[in-house]
Amino acid sequence: MEILQKALDWKHTQKIITSVIILNAIVLGILTDRSLTAEQIFLLEAVDKACLVIFVIELVAKLLVYRKNFWSDAWNIFDFVVVASSIIFISSSVSIIRAFRIFRLLKALAEFPELQILVSAMLKAIPSMSWALVLLFIIFYIFAVFGSALYGENFPELFGGVGGSMFTLFQVMTFESWATAVARPIMEVQPYAWIYFLVFILLTSITLLNVMVGIVVEAVGTISEAAKKKQAAKDAVKAQSEGYEADEVEKKIRKHFEQIEELLKARKA
Amino acid sequence: MEILQKALDWKHTQKIITSVIILNAIVLGILTDRSLTAEQIFLLEAVDKACLVIFVIELVAKLLVYRKNFWSDAWNIFDFVVVASSIIFISSSVSIIRAFRIFRLLKALAEFPELQILVSAMLKAIPSMSWALVLLFIIFYIFAVFGSALYGENFPELFGGVGGSMFTLFQVMTFESWATAVARPIMEVQPYAWIYFLVFILLTSITLLNVMVGIVVEAVGTISEAAKKKQAAKDAVKAQSEGYEADEVEKKIRKHFEQIEELLKARKA
Amino acid sequence: MEILQKALDWKHTQKIITSVIILNAIVLGILTDRSLTAEQIFLLEAVDKACLVIFVIELVAKLLVYRKNFWSDAWNIFDFVVVASSIIFISSSVSIIRAFRIFRLLKALAEFPELQILVSAMLKAIPSMSWALVLLFIIFYIFAVFGSALYGENFPELFGGVGGSMFTLFQVMTFESWATAVARPIMEVQPYAWIYFLVFILLTSITLLNVMVGIVVEAVGTISEAAKKKQAAKDAVKAQSEGYEADEVEKKIRKHFEQIEELLKARKA
Amino acid sequence: MEILQKALDWKHTQKIITSVIILNAIVLGILTDRSLTAEQIFLLEAVDKACLVIFVIELVAKLLVYRKNFWSDAWNIFDFVVVASSIIFISSSVSIIRAFRIFRLLKALAEFPELQILVSAMLKAIPSMSWALVLLFIIFYIFAVFGSALYGENFPELFGGVGGSMFTLFQVMTFESWATAVARPIMEVQPYAWIYFLVFILLTSITLLNVMVGIVVEAVGTISEAAKKKQAAKDAVKAQSEGYEADEVEKKIRKHFEQIEELLKARKA
Repeated sequence: MEILQKALDWKHTQKIITSVIILNAIVLGILTDRSLTAEQIFLLEAVDKACLVIFVIELVAKLLVYRKNFWSDAWNIFDFVVVASSIIFISSSVSIIRAFRIFRLLKALAEFPELQILVSAMLKAIPSMSWALVLLFIIFYIFAVFGSALYGENFPELFGGVGGSMFTLFQVMTFESWATAVARPIMEVQPYAWIYFLVFILLTSITLLNVMVGIVVEAVGTISEAAKKKQAAKDAVKAQSEGYEADEVEKKIRKHFEQIEELLKARKA
Repeated sequence: MEILQKALDWKHTQKIITSVIILNAIVLGILTDRSLTAEQIFLLEAVDKACLVIFVIELVAKLLVYRKNFWSDAWNIFDFVVVASSIIFISSSVSIIRAFRIFRLLKALAEFPELQILVSAMLKAIPSMSWALVLLFIIFYIFAVFGSALYGENFPELFGGVGGSMFTLFQVMTFESWATAVARPIMEVQPYAWIYFLVFILLTSITLLNVMVGIVVEAVGTISEAAKKKQAAKDAVKAQSEGYEADEVEKKIRKHFEQIEELLKARKA
Repeated sequence: MEILQKALDWKHTQKIITSVIILNAIVLGILTDRSLTAEQIFLLEAVDKACLVIFVIELVAKLLVYRKNFWSDAWNIFDFVVVASSIIFISSSVSIIRAFRIFRLLKALAEFPELQILVSAMLKAIPSMSWALVLLFIIFYIFAVFGSALYGENFPELFGGVGGSMFTLFQVMTFESWATAVARPIMEVQPYAWIYFLVFILLTSITLLNVMVGIVVEAVGTISEAAKKKQAAKDAVKAQSEGYEADEVEKKIRKHFEQIEELLKARKA
Repeated sequence: MEILQKALDWKHTQKIITSVIILNAIVLGILTDRSLTAEQIFLLEAVDKACLVIFVIELVAKLLVYRKNFWSDAWNIFDFVVVASSIIFISSSVSIIRAFRIFRLLKALAEFPELQILVSAMLKAIPSMSWALVLLFIIFYIFAVFGSALYGENFPELFGGVGGSMFTLFQVMTFESWATAVARPIMEVQPYAWIYFLVFILLTSITLLNVMVGIVVEAVGTISEAAKKKQAAKDAVKAQSEGYEADEVEKKIRKHFEQIEELLKARKA
């Protein structure tokens, strides 16, 4: 147990794991080359399996050392899922199942703290735009059902059913061939279709612009709030030091007043 | 009347209405499937009509309970229009008219306060960019009339009349096949057409950028103004509490001065 | 002269001119319709000429009334150029020359102060991004000359000469069919062309992003500076009123000190 | 040596060099014209070589005058590399090698201080977005390997190997024909491919949005920090001047208290 602890804490362990991740990623990339010979594939697959063995050893070591604490870090669970899924799909020879092995590259996200921070920040931004995305979905759904009823009969490949319509509308939202391949052919049969597309493009553009503005404003707000807190902390320190001085002055004044009072009492006496 | 009031205020009423809206939306989505049998369609249409009945009951209940107050909330009127239009088009069997039923999904906007806020915020942003949109329209109109005169004869499908030209220019503004399908074919006949498209793209890009910047700046301004008001309120409270302390000090000083004055008077006497 | 002055100052004059501009714009729009009969064209052209007459009368009246002061307002000169060019091209029957008449719609910019402000604001934003545009032009020119040398022989319609190359690069910058119609065909002959396009897209994207960020930052800065000045003005007023109070307190204290001093002198005496 | 120094410091030297750069750029632009006669080419090449000679003279002069200090300015090294590479490729007649001559136009960047500032600012923005670009690369690599395994067999021209897949994914990220030329053809064979493209577009859009927001926020932050420092400096000056006044008041008060103390002593005595 202690040996494992030491091995995990060893300063080069992290570097070795990172190197293995990068090596594994390169090997999986080369394996996509269709001109490889059977021998080359066998060799690369061997390297791939060796990498997986190292990942499994690292994971088992962490599990044995940290025990229950292992599961308290979300990035460890993420790591576990990636490696576990690799083991499940290792014996499969179906190319689609084998492709899942590349997700092992996601281990890199858990190795670099900077990438963890970035991904966490991006996940945090999602709630702030969640209602805008709900609104976007409602717009999409309404236009998809409406579009299916209007253009589904004449253009089943574009507006045949709610699913296909939503894909076409997503294409329209990205402005990809929306006029040449979607709007213009439909307008030749149904000339007033331009209203449908114009309204859809305007609504989705405004909603997306709203999402973007929301993210920018929130980001600027977060930054300026952090700056304000820093400023407030500085001000507090400054106020305190000034307070000490003010106290000194007050003490002296009080002392003098006490003396004046004494003078008055003496007079009255 | 009281029973209706109680029914509307019942804690589960809102949840039931929301569930019916979602059920109705799913049913209308499935109805777009072209492979449905007549029986399935009959069943789904029955569910759709049942949903509409529930919406009508909710609306009538609200009308009876709130009476004139019902019309003072814009979202109620919005709700009324959506349900009323559904009833008008219910018996129609023309697919285009039937498609309007999906607008009932917009009822969801009126049920979720978060969506109400979002839509209200988006509507508020419109006036701030209205003059930029007027400018954009003037640019579009001038280029449409100019384009019709220049390229209308050779390319009637692109620049035949002001309406078609404006649609083509909108396509150009979204950068959709503007070169391959619009500018390049025209430039083969009229080589200097690139000036027309370049100027149009630059003008509209700058105007749209201006609109975007305006929205971002206003949003940031609104946020920072809100933050300033909060800060000002805090400062006021702080100043007041400091004011009390200052008052205490002043009272003591005044008291002492009064005593000094007494001393002076006594001396002079 | 005085009658003209009164006519220009008459409260309805502005409204009439604006109505004539809109009427004229609609007429010029309808005139682009290719299905008009000779009679309809004759009638519309008559209305167009009547509108021009009104514009000329307005301009002459302004010239006679304001004389030299007329030329001190840039929007008046703009107005003059638009109307003057309309008169010059009025007798021409060449459609390209006749198209210039639509520029008369730009008079609307000079009639609405809101549009004047907007256009002025957009013109002001240009200097702040002028050096970024110079950099963008240098990038375009270098890639155009380089592209002509590399791909000009095989693809003269895309990269034949510096002018054509710059148009193609502008198309690539807007992402319009840059892969399907430009990069992929070239890559089939010269496989390493992807480096050229990737570097160009990255450079122009970063430069444009820089321009956008510059405009946003400047706009936010202008707003926050204006807010600061407002705050500073408020603070000054507050400080002054506090100053008065402080003066009052000081006066009282001074007075008491003087009395104390008197007391001291009297004692010594 | 002194003559060289004087020549470099001469007020017109800079202007002459700038003119030569612009002349050289124009000549290189005209040389891309395919309709030039052999004579015209000979003449233009002569001008090009003359320009290069002037650049070499400027560079040698600077090297002789500034000696070791020459290498301490990054823009001088940049200048040296551009001119040196021009000399190396001067005798080559291969058009691809000759095209490198246009990089001499980059000398303009080193001549205008405004462009130097702009390029420096853009280079400074890169580190702030470097981790987001690493994340973007990981997303690209994973989707490229995954895409090669899934669609490589059926669409080798789009997803044949990791390199080709990454180019296709870059095209998809720019929204260029992503549906009509990439997603739709694949979906006809593998109907669930839409999930792959939807997830890829959402992930890259969010990451790019994050990069943009980061740059905007940093830019705004830099500006507002600069504004705060300016404000702090102002406040410090103001506080100091107020401090002087406060000191004066304190001195007077102290003096009076001393007198009161004298009074008290005298009384006690």
